[in-house]
Amino acid sequence: MSAGVGNKKSKEIGVGILGYSIGKAHAYGWQDLSRYFYPPKLTPKLIALAGRSKEGVEHEAKRFGFERSYSKWEELVRDKEVEIFDNCAPPSLHPEPTIAAAEAGKQLVCEKPLARNAKDARTMLDAAERARVKHMTGFNYRFLPAVTFARKLITEGTLGKIHYFKSAYLGYNGGFDDPSYPIKWMHQSETAGYGALADLGTHAIDLARFLVGEVASVSGASETFIKERPVAQGSSEKARVDVDDTTIACMRFREGALGVFEASWLTSGRVDYLRFEAYGTMGTIRFNLERLNELEVFIRDDRADLAGFRRVPVVGKDHPYMKTFWTNQGIGFAWQYSFTNELHHFIECLAEDKPLGPIGATFEDGYKAMLIMDAIAESSRTEKWVRVPE
Amino acid sequence: MSAGVGNKKSKEIGVGILGYSIGKAHAYGWQDLSRYFYPPKLTPKLIALAGRSKEGVEHEAKRFGFERSYSKWEELVRDKEVEIFDNCAPPSLHPEPTIAAAEAGKQLVCEKPLARNAKDARTMLDAAERARVKHMTGFNYRFLPAVTFARKLITEGTLGKIHYFKSAYLGYNGGFDDPSYPIKWMHQSETAGYGALADLGTHAIDLARFLVGEVASVSGASETFIKERPVAQGSSEKARVDVDDTTIACMRFREGALGVFEASWLTSGRVDYLRFEAYGTMGTIRFNLERLNELEVFIRDDRADLAGFRRVPVVGKDHPYMKTFWTNQGIGFAWQYSFTNELHHFIECLAEDKPLGPIGATFEDGYKAMLIMDAIAESSRTEKWVRVPE
Amino acid sequence: MSAGVGNKKSKEIGVGILGYSIGKAHAYGWQDLSRYFYPPKLTPKLIALAGRSKEGVEHEAKRFGFERSYSKWEELVRDKEVEIFDNCAPPSLHPEPTIAAAEAGKQLVCEKPLARNAKDARTMLDAAERARVKHMTGFNYRFLPAVTFARKLITEGTLGKIHYFKSAYLGYNGGFDDPSYPIKWMHQSETAGYGALADLGTHAIDLARFLVGEVASVSGASETFIKERPVAQGSSEKARVDVDDTTIACMRFREGALGVFEASWLTSGRVDYLRFEAYGTMGTIRFNLERLNELEVFIRDDRADLAGFRRVPVVGKDHPYMKTFWTNQGIGFAWQYSFTNELHHFIECLAEDKPLGPIGATFEDGYKAMLIMDAIAESSRTEKWVRVPE
Amino acid sequence: MSAGVGNKKSKEIGVGILGYSIGKAHAYGWQDLSRYFYPPKLTPKLIALAGRSKEGVEHEAKRFGFERSYSKWEELVRDKEVEIFDNCAPPSLHPEPTIAAAEAGKQLVCEKPLARNAKDARTMLDAAERARVKHMTGFNYRFLPAVTFARKLITEGTLGKIHYFKSAYLGYNGGFDDPSYPIKWMHQSETAGYGALADLGTHAIDLARFLVGEVASVSGASETFIKERPVAQGSSEKARVDVDDTTIACMRFREGALGVFEASWLTSGRVDYLRFEAYGTMGTIRFNLERLNELEVFIRDDRADLAGFRRVPVVGKDHPYMKTFWTNQGIGFAWQYSFTNELHHFIECLAEDKPLGPIGATFEDGYKAMLIMDAIAESSRTEKWVRVPE
Repeated sequence: MSAGVGNKKSKEIGVGILGYSIGKAHAYGWQDLSRYFYPPKLTPKLIALAGRSKEGVEHEAKRFGFERSYSKWEELVRDKEVEIFDNCAPPSLHPEPTIAAAEAGKQLVCEKPLARNAKDARTMLDAAERARVKHMTGFNYRFLPAVTFARKLITEGTLGKIHYFKSAYLGYNGGFDDPSYPIKWMHQSETAGYGALADLGTHAIDLARFLVGEVASVSGASETFIKERPVAQGSSEKARVDVDDTTIACMRFREGALGVFEASWLTSGRVDYLRFEAYGTMGTIRFNLERLNELEVFIRDDRADLAGFRRVPVVGKDHPYMKTFWTNQGIGFAWQYSFTNELHHFIECLAEDKPLGPIGATFEDGYKAMLIMDAIAESSRTEKWVRVPE
Repeated sequence: MSAGVGNKKSKEIGVGILGYSIGKAHAYGWQDLSRYFYPPKLTPKLIALAGRSKEGVEHEAKRFGFERSYSKWEELVRDKEVEIFDNCAPPSLHPEPTIAAAEAGKQLVCEKPLARNAKDARTMLDAAERARVKHMTGFNYRFLPAVTFARKLITEGTLGKIHYFKSAYLGYNGGFDDPSYPIKWMHQSETAGYGALADLGTHAIDLARFLVGEVASVSGASETFIKERPVAQGSSEKARVDVDDTTIACMRFREGALGVFEASWLTSGRVDYLRFEAYGTMGTIRFNLERLNELEVFIRDDRADLAGFRRVPVVGKDHPYMKTFWTNQGIGFAWQYSFTNELHHFIECLAEDKPLGPIGATFEDGYKAMLIMDAIAESSRTEKWVRVPE
Repeated sequence: MSAGVGNKKSKEIGVGILGYSIGKAHAYGWQDLSRYFYPPKLTPKLIALAGRSKEGVEHEAKRFGFERSYSKWEELVRDKEVEIFDNCAPPSLHPEPTIAAAEAGKQLVCEKPLARNAKDARTMLDAAERARVKHMTGFNYRFLPAVTFARKLITEGTLGKIHYFKSAYLGYNGGFDDPSYPIKWMHQSETAGYGALADLGTHAIDLARFLVGEVASVSGASETFIKERPVAQGSSEKARVDVDDTTIACMRFREGALGVFEASWLTSGRVDYLRFEAYGTMGTIRFNLERLNELEVFIRDDRADLAGFRRVPVVGKDHPYMKTFWTNQGIGFAWQYSFTNELHHFIECLAEDKPLGPIGATFEDGYKAMLIMDAIAESSRTEKWVRVPE
Repeated sequence: MSAGVGNKKSKEIGVGILGYSIGKAHAYGWQDLSRYFYPPKLTPKLIALAGRSKEGVEHEAKRFGFERSYSKWEELVRDKEVEIFDNCAPPSLHPEPTIAAAEAGKQLVCEKPLARNAKDARTMLDAAERARVKHMTGFNYRFLPAVTFARKLITEGTLGKIHYFKSAYLGYNGGFDDPSYPIKWMHQSETAGYGALADLGTHAIDLARFLVGEVASVSGASETFIKERPVAQGSSEKARVDVDDTTIACMRFREGALGVFEASWLTSGRVDYLRFEAYGTMGTIRFNLERLNELEVFIRDDRADLAGFRRVPVVGKDHPYMKTFWTNQGIGFAWQYSFTNELHHFIECLAEDKPLGPIGATFEDGYKAMLIMDAIAESSRTEKWVRVPE
């Protein structure tokens, strides 16, 4: 960062962020990568923060150490010092600003889901490719040590061929299971596209692709159990919720595996339960974001009387990313460091002009996840299996 | 049992069992109910055991204390002392012997799934109703203390209205995840009807109905990942597996809830994982057969800073059935006692001429579960949602 | 058993039981061993049950299928058909009847703790040895599959040399953590000798010896936190509790290991928590009676990035005892089967005239456990480490 | 911090750190408190880092953003801009520099254990009190949300009176369970005072005092199972380990409770297992640092059939400290933030001239913990209970 931890060994690169909700986690991520990957190949510098409320954005910009703030995204796009455009706004605000930023030659980071639908996502991907800039979709969970490690176990063959995969993201978003919780932008299709499917499910879908491969077809069902919410805390005026709060699907992967997918905001007791289970011909793994430092692993050819799920603490120096974090502490890696790792990966790919994949998620990955989400939504309407376009 | 624990206070009733695989668990169940529900209203007496191998059935009959044995099921049906006909043979042998027994006026118990398909199951239900005998399908897991308790929590309203329900039965049947494991009758549609769907899934489907209600429609997918198996241990000759080893489905319940269903034999590491999760408007419950003495319960209106899943040991004298078992021991209730409770329930309904439902499962429940299974199979073929007939 | 499961292939041997509290579990154990170890080398026959209340003992004797009942233990000792004398009375009633039975030439089983103190236990051991009969102390937990398996892992060297061992038995006995729970014989030294130390702790001490070896010295502390209890449910009259409800100790084993010991009735939330952890130079194991079908195993030389505790379901055909029980079921082995295994072991040693040890616990083991308990109690009084006599 | 996150609203205060092992966590803590407690009442400014190796300390100072570095602690003490002296050196280097800093009028933070023995710790406490400066011992685990919450549950009476308390710190320090792991300063009494007792145990002892109160007497046992280690990785030259690698103790609290204490470096499989269990007359709590975001709570007066341990995710906005962290994320709080909270507490007490206690640990708390550690060590030598001086 422009100052703070680390001495400026490496060239700086200017960052502009649009939106300061999840944008806050990005701001910390950009700053912290200088700390945990010291020295980074490029040092991110927080140039400007943009948001709708002039007052709000000014306050947050100061707090996080940005040099300036804007209340219009167009200003952020015009700012010459902003070299990386990091879009942390709601999905409805993803395409236009991101495409403008691409056309202005900025490097692109965009939060998930990439857009409200695949069509919009496609325009973003096309714009980024036309502009020949780097582009990343914010699938930060790929960068958890346990998830990266899970992928390693699969690709190295320890689990054999995966034939069955479950992924679910179940939670309550701090109160969405309560009908008196007021309406938010996530509850309306105009801003969010989809509901739990977009907010939570998109991560579960990306992990399916990250760990098992492309999805061939889906059959889903969506419901909106809480159909209206107060317009504000305690208000008796109600607004309509027009997105799913629960979506489920069966999936068939191109390579033959079956899959189950779930996303819900109404699963009381689940705090932040991004879960996957991958069953292979040689073994099984299980992951749960609520205990993100652990991976459960079953190896089929273990000694028969000692076979059982191993609860592997993914906190040792032999585990992905952990060399730079606090190893062998109870919990030395928290949720927010997934952004640190993710944004560092972006910086490194920029500095060395490397492709982001297969570990990092490009806009193409964001687009493909949207194709699957659109297919699930279509399937829920038509009550038929829907092929995911290749 | 004809003698043994308990003195014969109550009238005896003769039991004949067809098949001695799961039939072994039934034999113990009939015997043990005199012990745990002392004195029972009727005392079951093990009259005869029938099986194909004369030698085998003789040995087992002696071992379990039956008075005689038969190598043809017709002999069992003809035996006048057999008042309860307990069919523990594979599904292909369910309809004909059971219908004959009904026509001979015997009371009917039949293992799950009730038949290879709903059509056959319907003929059994019709025969039982025509004969005006009691009939029970062997959904023994309803009789686990934690499962009965789960139903109580739902029906008394502690969880509010259930909007999302997951049930899965994942396992490996002691080796089915190994392609070198030899073929069994469960691997062939002629004897079994379906594969994992019938063997395991039928329980998960029954629990969905038991806990949440009727299923309106389903969309499923089945696969046979291990397509052939040795005809015998170590043999190089292979036989074709023509049933599913993994089946998944999305479900819509009539009352509006969504559901996910899974059954697989290929889930290495899962030993006997019959799992359900019920999410309601006021709380959540989770159950896992591998820890059948526990139920996890989340209550939404708990004090906010103390909200969390309670791991309730369902082993106290206030819990269903436990008054008669060993309370407050680590594990004083095992899998096999589900049969004890189930068969005792049958005996009590017989003695008092009470309906088996809603706790006990009649042939109608067995038939309705088959309708859902047929619908899942059809859906997998047609790639469309399929309505379950009312 | 005299009737019931199994045909009488083997010679019968008559059993007499004194007391029908834990005696109930013994009655079932004697009966069930014919079922699970079929055919047994000797078939136990329930001859007579003795207890103080004529009416009570008659009812229970009938229920469990004993041929007769007595209200004086002397009658049981005099009964010629009683070949095995199984003492399930409180510790104060262990020495005299057991010694009389020994002198009458009966084979001896006695519940734990063997007596109220080591001196009394010694007289019982001496009498049994003089009479040259078999003698067993009821340390049934040795016969849990997971515990026997734990011992195997230690003796075969998988864990290396054990340097640290923790054993605890924490519970609440269905209500002892409630001061309004009425007084029982366990709460008074005259009948029980010690409190939680005797009732629960004796098992934890035996497992220490069973798994690690002899204890050299101890330093303990005992407390009676609930000092009086109602004489009956709801009564305002109180009786004094003069035994410990919580006892802890540090231990030094002869082979050099350190150990921690705990026993308490006042540990609310713990239902039946007999726990041990054994830390060796090559690995670690953990056991918990509340999940008695599982053993957690850590192997130090596992692949570094896959090292973690394995939760081993001790339910497979390769695990001790499981061949004869329901393998690969969620929970096919319950607490009460520890008695089945234990009593079968006794029967087998009788039939083949083999020594009970090292798996079975003789009166010598019962006596040695008492020496340790006495040493802990002395240490609590003197506030010094106390050597355990060799 | 001098720059970085946050704008400088508040007055700055200069920080000097001695040592850069755990000092690294302190450096991050000082920096991050401006982020999570924005704006802090005083803004820490990293002035100088001191360490023995000139080269090493220069590199680290640059990396963490210190203005300068020293290779002698005396220089740090003389630096006028250093207002807070934060001692992160081994215990042997605690007294002299800290006392010198006190005499120079600096505010004092010192890592745990406060010294090698109580006598030295006392001199530090006296010097701090003479100098009338603030002084804090680095018992950072008090500042975990779950631990602070545990204290709240106890002090508000939810658990009733605590009668039994267990605390243990079991681990392996990333390799200490391996005899080929080379010798470190923690393995020698000259630098460390005690071994596992000091390194790990001191935290478990502090939590006992923090949660239950003063300890009256102890009886302990220490062992050194690995008696020598290579002087360097792979070397055949060995050096003697003269401190405990395993220490256990029984404790009696002044208020009457019993306690068990454990500390070991040789508990393979335990990564960082700081554990406590507090059993009270009304309920029980359990904590485990390996899952530091959870607290298990049992409430005795819960509805009887719903009684069970609640696994409370201590991640909500109603939980201590969590308002400022990422609430309702799987794991939004990691080990290192305990330092952030701790150092912020120090800053706030400085800014408002408030006492640190009872939440923060002063040198008096550090001294009292040393008294208990000395008593345990003495008890291990004398084989008697030892009173802890008042």
